Amino acid sequence: MFTISQDHKKSQKPRVVIIGGGFGGLTLAKALKKAPVDILMLDRHNYHTFQPLLYQVAMGSLEADSIGFPIRRIFIRQDNFTFNMADVEKINPESNTLTTNIGEICYDYLVIATGSNTNFFGNKEIEHYAMPMKNIPEALNLRSLILQNLETALVTTDMREKFALMTFVVVGGGPTGVELCGALAEMKHLILMKDYHGLSKYDMRVYLVEGKDRLLAAMSPKASAKAKAFLEKDGVIIYNSAHVQSYDGFYLTIDNGKTIKTRNVLWAAGVKGEMPGGIPAETVSKGNRIYVDEINRVKGYENIFAIGDVAAMISAEFPNGHPGVAPAAIQQGNTLAKNIAHLVKGETTEPFIYFDKGSLATIGRNKAVADLGKFHIQGFFAWVIWSLVHILSLVGFANKGIVLLRWAINYFTKNSDNRLIVRYFNTETRMPEVLSK
Amino acid sequence: MFTISQDHKKSQKPRVVIIGGGFGGLTLAKALKKAPVDILMLDRHNYHTFQPLLYQVAMGSLEADSIGFPIRRIFIRQDNFTFNMADVEKINPESNTLTTNIGEICYDYLVIATGSNTNFFGNKEIEHYAMPMKNIPEALNLRSLILQNLETALVTTDMREKFALMTFVVVGGGPTGVELCGALAEMKHLILMKDYHGLSKYDMRVYLVEGKDRLLAAMSPKASAKAKAFLEKDGVIIYNSAHVQSYDGFYLTIDNGKTIKTRNVLWAAGVKGEMPGGIPAETVSKGNRIYVDEINRVKGYENIFAIGDVAAMISAEFPNGHPGVAPAAIQQGNTLAKNIAHLVKGETTEPFIYFDKGSLATIGRNKAVADLGKFHIQGFFAWVIWSLVHILSLVGFANKGIVLLRWAINYFTKNSDNRLIVRYFNTETRMPEVLSK
Repeated sequence: MFTISQDHKKSQKPRVVIIGGGFGGLTLAKALKKAPVDILMLDRHNYHTFQPLLYQVAMGSLEADSIGFPIRRIFIRQDNFTFNMADVEKINPESNTLTTNIGEICYDYLVIATGSNTNFFGNKEIEHYAMPMKNIPEALNLRSLILQNLETALVTTDMREKFALMTFVVVGGGPTGVELCGALAEMKHLILMKDYHGLSKYDMRVYLVEGKDRLLAAMSPKASAKAKAFLEKDGVIIYNSAHVQSYDGFYLTIDNGKTIKTRNVLWAAGVKGEMPGGIPAETVSKGNRIYVDEINRVKGYENIFAIGDVAAMISAEFPNGHPGVAPAAIQQGNTLAKNIAHLVKGETTEPFIYFDKGSLATIGRNKAVADLGKFHIQGFFAWVIWSLVHILSLVGFANKGIVLLRWAINYFTKNSDNRLIVRYFNTETRMPEVLSK
Repeated sequence: MFTISQDHKKSQKPRVVIIGGGFGGLTLAKALKKAPVDILMLDRHNYHTFQPLLYQVAMGSLEADSIGFPIRRIFIRQDNFTFNMADVEKINPESNTLTTNIGEICYDYLVIATGSNTNFFGNKEIEHYAMPMKNIPEALNLRSLILQNLETALVTTDMREKFALMTFVVVGGGPTGVELCGALAEMKHLILMKDYHGLSKYDMRVYLVEGKDRLLAAMSPKASAKAKAFLEKDGVIIYNSAHVQSYDGFYLTIDNGKTIKTRNVLWAAGVKGEMPGGIPAETVSKGNRIYVDEINRVKGYENIFAIGDVAAMISAEFPNGHPGVAPAAIQQGNTLAKNIAHLVKGETTEPFIYFDKGSLATIGRNKAVADLGKFHIQGFFAWVIWSLVHILSLVGFANKGIVLLRWAINYFTKNSDNRLIVRYFNTETRMPEVLSK
């Protein structure tokens, strides 16, 4: 059996395997720096992705590399840490091993920190034609699709097709959907006619379709109302209490009776937990999250844990688990690090307590909404807070500098320099390609 | 017939169509700002690529977006300029039109500024398996291949395969090949063991195969000797007067009797002019360059021109045309702008005179060679010149800032943060893919 032993220290220390290098996994691994354990992190990507800014990569406001950071670089000074790029296919709790594309891997403690992925609610046609945006490759695909469709709109002689190419439908009115809509509205008003002579902003349409009766349903009604007002002022057409029924690449039908002809459907309608096989179905909730106890231990196992988006710690206050946001994952990572150290040393564990740091969402330049405890802030000040929080949360000094530089220039020029089609997106196969020759 | 008329000003001005947004095309279009013409630029990509730094994108030292700049953004304040993303299939001189993937386009003056592409000298097997690097998608593919192979080397149990994954062969000892080799040697010495616990720098091999008897054959013998010394000191194995015979994805055979088992062949062995169909064969040189007269007019035509890498202006001093470097393209673009204005106004044209600004190549940190007129400079000072020239030549203020920031951090940390596999490179199909899920 292959056990990734080359760089596993010849130690008697227990091995903690962490699947996933997102906010939760990174925090946990860092917090275990002094613990008497060896850490092996596995991720499909060789880098951490700062997901909150994916939409800016997709909209051509930031480079992909500025929101990604190589995982090994983060831990370059942490001796008890090893990383391997791997796709974990199956957890085998009976043997304490993982089946992966790079071989069998054994663990003493396993932490599932695999996060969430786009939820298409089982609709295969929508999954094929709508654009998800949960990782950098998907954000770059979306960037290419938007820019390619504008290029095509410039030269098509079919006016109905031109409008379809210039019609953008965002499905889902959570923070991602609202931020995408805001950025699309900004592109419409500030950039379209500067860049694409021959396209009129009056021909560009942005729709937002949300199933609930208000946007940003996880935030305060005040924030919801303000976000809606901001978007509507920018010309976004919002359908609340509306659900997409089908999308065939040309026509999107909604259960409010509307049909929209569009070539751009951006899917931000929901997420589901993303996990390897091997977890019994009864341990998994409706949204595909794994039931864990108060120390994030997976129900029914001694040495398997789950944190972040993929974990559901049910309580009276959180009947569906904690919100799938970075602070929850980070806090669970920190607490679990302490508890793993406790377990290794045979000490008593401490239950996880969630501290709600509040919620933020931006709608565009100078426009954001924030719920910070009792304070509900909207507009410019909320936007400053949003910007600061995001810059400071980025991994890497250079990344912080680059995002700051891009934002400053984009702010003052009311434009951006990242609208490059670095991967040609094939709208039939829905796969990226190298541009011919 | 479709004529891209939407944004073509209703004017009686002649239309200059420029194919290609490289150094030559950009310079020409800018210099035509005040000329009584309308300019339409066509390019396969919607951005200009700063090719001299492609190797740093490939090696994970820079982000792709920092060496690309959207072409429309460059000309945002130039009223007589329009851009369309298009692939020109054929020139039809008899009707003054172009056949393109976005329709027929008519021109009054046509400038072919399509540059050059990788020359595999007709070897289809090598073309399939070796990695070219002439544009951003190819540089990102190369980055992915290198990083994926290191990941695989970490976990393979086959020691011969492990060495093949850690063996890098650069074919071609021009500036690109030398710079790639230098960067690979730097990765071997400074980065490999910091990042990839489990890989030893003593297992990594870098080869350079060059057909001529010296490296950097276009530079002074002094520069060649110093570049060779720098690379050999860093452990690069150099074969001069040697030609690759075959590469099947596993074994590379060279006509000096050597066979190298390698999974990484980087092809920088030569370029050939890249042009649409429709140019008669007798007007095209051996290296696929178009014969032009002293004002860059294509032989046999009144209103078709070629500049830069794709043009061959034959003279006693330049029997094969000017060197395929940015300054030649830029200078030809500037002179041609004047001459097109002269032609439009019925004035006398002025012949092109090439001013050799010298040559630069870097081998790594603090190491470069420079031929500046009579001065041959090597080492740190040449490296400073190289760095300054490249920063200042980049298009875009943000790009300059980002490259400067990355370089400063990379210099002091002896590492880099851009080793992200943002596109998974399929080594069988040789195409990028979205990472599974």
